[in-house]
Amino acid sequence: MEIPTSHPRYKSLLLRHQLVDGFNAGLVTDSGLIAHGRGEAFDYLLGEKTCDFAKDAIAVTSVMLLKAKNPVFSVNGNSASIAGKELVELAKAFDKLTLEVNLFYHSDERSKKIANHLKALGAPRVVESSVSPAAILPGIESPRRKLNAEGMAKADFVLVAIEDGDRCEALVKAGYQVVSIDLNPMSRTAQTTQITIVDELTRVITALISQAETDERLPVDELSNRISGYDNRKILSRAISAIRNGFACEVKS
Amino acid sequence: MEIPTSHPRYKSLLLRHQLVDGFNAGLVTDSGLIAHGRGEAFDYLLGEKTCDFAKDAIAVTSVMLLKAKNPVFSVNGNSASIAGKELVELAKAFDKLTLEVNLFYHSDERSKKIANHLKALGAPRVVESSVSPAAILPGIESPRRKLNAEGMAKADFVLVAIEDGDRCEALVKAGYQVVSIDLNPMSRTAQTTQITIVDELTRVITALISQAETDERLPVDELSNRISGYDNRKILSRAISAIRNGFACEVKS
Repeated sequence: MEIPTSHPRYKSLLLRHQLVDGFNAGLVTDSGLIAHGRGEAFDYLLGEKTCDFAKDAIAVTSVMLLKAKNPVFSVNGNSASIAGKELVELAKAFDKLTLEVNLFYHSDERSKKIANHLKALGAPRVVESSVSPAAILPGIESPRRKLNAEGMAKADFVLVAIEDGDRCEALVKAGYQVVSIDLNPMSRTAQTTQITIVDELTRVITALISQAETDERLPVDELSNRISGYDNRKILSRAISAIRNGFACEVKS
Repeated sequence: MEIPTSHPRYKSLLLRHQLVDGFNAGLVTDSGLIAHGRGEAFDYLLGEKTCDFAKDAIAVTSVMLLKAKNPVFSVNGNSASIAGKELVELAKAFDKLTLEVNLFYHSDERSKKIANHLKALGAPRVVESSVSPAAILPGIESPRRKLNAEGMAKADFVLVAIEDGDRCEALVKAGYQVVSIDLNPMSRTAQTTQITIVDELTRVITALISQAETDERLPVDELSNRISGYDNRKILSRAISAIRNGFACEVKS
């Protein structure tokens, strides 16, 4: 089915089609489709655009990514399907960045498929949590607690997208610096991580690449001030207000 | 996977599992899974309960259902999967009520499967739009424009659940009295129909059966006043306010 580019919700429908393609290819689970629908509802309330509070969180993420020695982006079936291309662009822009496949509903087969999908798109560094794990994340029981030796086990900065609250809590508790990308500012994930970007994943990565290109040329002091002035609780409050205002529409008479 | 009944979101998770069962049985499409996720997000914002504005809309629906000669409930894959049992209970309580299968992504096979699912649950009167159509709904191009001779073609009162805006607009334009059950009070469906019940489908049907049992014993005048005093725009405004207030949570400190 062709979606006309003039459709007001073209991008949203395109992402949905990519997700269904990922589902048919065995990258995404049925629960992943339902989870995407929840995200769509919140994005609709945000006006399907990158708001100021997301830009502020992206600006801090950019600095931390530039400073990190071993940053890792944790990838699952949904994020690989809808933002595979963008994730690989990010990984190419930062050759120190590792993409680590980690799945809520883990299977070796699905993990491998997602890793291969990212490699086929040109990702330079892809690992899987379930392959060559060097450590275990305390407080998590499922196979997803594994931390790859070349990825999460030595990471000093972690980005997660569309991630569940249990794993985020465990990561923060274990001392990781975590940025989450989550469309629901009230979710446990959003409320747990040190930095929360309340925005749609493909928009976030595109904005992050562009922000980091600019930031590379700025003096270190300026970048450090950006981190010290950051308050994630304020970011979340602004996101919640924005969604509430997005709901302030008039009823058709 | 067993869900413990003590889980705070037990009912929501149970419905999701029923939907996935429906998907695996070929009743539900991949788009249906995503659509369910969107509904889940709005139900979460409503507090996963039947609010007063929904009760008021259900009270009017009850009267109209009691008065109708040929009421029809339009059923799709999602509604049959998550509320098949409740739909059949409603159809048994009102033996004049016909369940008509009508699908956004129509296939003869899926339509037949859904009809058989409802019949297996004990539904007395099930028809399919695509079988023996007697008329065509103007303004709709897809196979779903067909109106079954024993169902929609002679209906004087229509209930739709989880329905798309195009069909609702066409039905209202064609002169039908339509009640929609929709979790998003801003959707085109919600804003188009004469009565909108902003609530989750299984809760709505259970409440509707109970309301109609009470109403059957009330004097006609009292019931007529309920209809004449009804203003759907106010119902929608109250629903939007409730969702906005549901979003007034505090950010964890």
